[in-house]
Amino acid sequence: MATRVAIDALGGDRAPDEVVAGAVEAASGTIVPVLYGTPSLETSGLELVECTEAIAMHEKPADAVRAKPDSSLVRAVRAVGDGDAAAVVSAGNTGAVLAASLLHVRRLPGVLRPGIAIVIPSRRGPTVLIDAGANAEARPEHLVQFAHMGVVFAEDVLDVRDPSVRLLSIGEEPEKGNQLTLEAHALLAEADLRFDGNTEGRGLLEGEADVVVCDGFTGNVALKTLEGTIRSILEALRSEIRSSVRGRVGGLLIRPAARGLRARLDPETTGGGYLLGLKGLVVIAHGSSSRVAVGNATRMAARGVEHRLVERLAERLPAARGEARSSGARSSGATVER
Amino acid sequence: MATRVAIDALGGDRAPDEVVAGAVEAASGTIVPVLYGTPSLETSGLELVECTEAIAMHEKPADAVRAKPDSSLVRAVRAVGDGDAAAVVSAGNTGAVLAASLLHVRRLPGVLRPGIAIVIPSRRGPTVLIDAGANAEARPEHLVQFAHMGVVFAEDVLDVRDPSVRLLSIGEEPEKGNQLTLEAHALLAEADLRFDGNTEGRGLLEGEADVVVCDGFTGNVALKTLEGTIRSILEALRSEIRSSVRGRVGGLLIRPAARGLRARLDPETTGGGYLLGLKGLVVIAHGSSSRVAVGNATRMAARGVEHRLVERLAERLPAARGEARSSGARSSGATVER
Repeated sequence: MATRVAIDALGGDRAPDEVVAGAVEAASGTIVPVLYGTPSLETSGLELVECTEAIAMHEKPADAVRAKPDSSLVRAVRAVGDGDAAAVVSAGNTGAVLAASLLHVRRLPGVLRPGIAIVIPSRRGPTVLIDAGANAEARPEHLVQFAHMGVVFAEDVLDVRDPSVRLLSIGEEPEKGNQLTLEAHALLAEADLRFDGNTEGRGLLEGEADVVVCDGFTGNVALKTLEGTIRSILEALRSEIRSSVRGRVGGLLIRPAARGLRARLDPETTGGGYLLGLKGLVVIAHGSSSRVAVGNATRMAARGVEHRLVERLAERLPAARGEARSSGARSSGATVER
Repeated sequence: MATRVAIDALGGDRAPDEVVAGAVEAASGTIVPVLYGTPSLETSGLELVECTEAIAMHEKPADAVRAKPDSSLVRAVRAVGDGDAAAVVSAGNTGAVLAASLLHVRRLPGVLRPGIAIVIPSRRGPTVLIDAGANAEARPEHLVQFAHMGVVFAEDVLDVRDPSVRLLSIGEEPEKGNQLTLEAHALLAEADLRFDGNTEGRGLLEGEADVVVCDGFTGNVALKTLEGTIRSILEALRSEIRSSVRGRVGGLLIRPAARGLRARLDPETTGGGYLLGLKGLVVIAHGSSSRVAVGNATRMAARGVEHRLVERLAERLPAARGEARSSGARSSGATVER
């Protein structure tokens, strides 16, 4: 059966053109992208659900979602909540996608906070980084739940057997870190997880763990540092190479090798991150997504549906919930953060 | 006049051999390294101050400093406080160097917390990252002071005119971040600084600001992610290149270009970071420092003395102190964190 994926055609720095082009690219016998956009949108034959407005990147998430119920972002997310689509992809305002998801897709029972799971293409295979930016503030028990969600994702979608978990901190020793990581370390050590202790940012690309957990602020800083560094180095290398004839010849010869590396490391290859912990599948793509990234994000959404990621989380997370509760979680609704 | 630099010969993963070799390399007509180590240490003719013990990397900083007053680390740091050396270099336990410095070198008047300033070799020149790891927890007013210290460093040592300052966060908009960065953003905007707003990790190597401020946890995660990514990519590129004859030939041709890039980006080139905010000059080198890194850290220490960095901070910081105080700093001694 074909998977219907709702696409927020007006979300992202390069919307709508690159978003539509990406959706068109991803369309196949098994993937049916449905565009949410203005009536005048050129859809190249894809189904269009007409919306009257768009949420901009700088708008305050909760306010924008409340004020613009007929925006492409809110409507596309709501399609998943209403059962009109199996998954949604948006390259728009991340906070607004989170807010709309909490409102219209809703959290799985027992989930304290949804977290963004990103796949980092490490040297030894995929590493799941969670939370990559949904929660700028988090409590220790949230990190334990992120770990459980990351493990389900790694096992059921990435086919990693018995995934190892590490906590992103500033030293490998348990006593290195801030208040949050010290407390989270203690909870993770007691949890039913293959917890291997702390890891540092330098371990991310080395694949020192299958799942790396952190709060969304730290995860987002680490992810953007990683992506920016990859980009800067490849550009710097290119410009060094081009500055001499010898270098230019060498550059031509190593091009296939450099392409392989770039293909592995380019964030566009992954396309986006899953917002885990919800009753439906939500994929958040980079704001700067090109058609390639949107195409990959759309395929990623369909893959999550195919692997029954949401159902697997629902089946496997109650244990996590019990653990988080018993380790002192205060009851509080997940609230949207900047 | 020659500058005496105390070297903690027993600190660091590769001590004492690489540390001594680095000190020997840095010795010159103007730099006189003085080694602090065990009586049996082979010093290649450098002056030796005999110590009875060493502080290991995993020891609890405050406890170790208290329990081992005759350790090479404590004695070398104390040499600066006592006026026996103009600066100190240690590749040992960072927390212990911080604890020993607070005890024996002491803070400049008005300084709330010392911060580690690291120079990142960005595309547009040096970028100062502060705090790169001294304070795992920080308050907004600490970040304002880090910014002032970073500016003095950038102007007086790196010769940057009117340095710009940015706050490391998870989005360029002022409302993006966690509680700490939101409050720090407001204080920085009011301070007497050329504050250009938030920056993301991706801007570090691009040189989007002359000074980037953050708490020590975030700064350390970002720094290690940056360094680890540089290393991983250069290694991955090398192994891709070596996997084919064509690549190997190309690799030989681009070697000079790659060397230039590596020389710029290698953390060993910088050698270490200054611990700013103290009454004396303290340089913290990487735990993994080789002789090259130790040599560069020693020259860096001498350069700080030559540029009168401590005196310049003492002259220029009182304004910062007034600002920090008026913006609600509670009085509290700087305490050592893990």
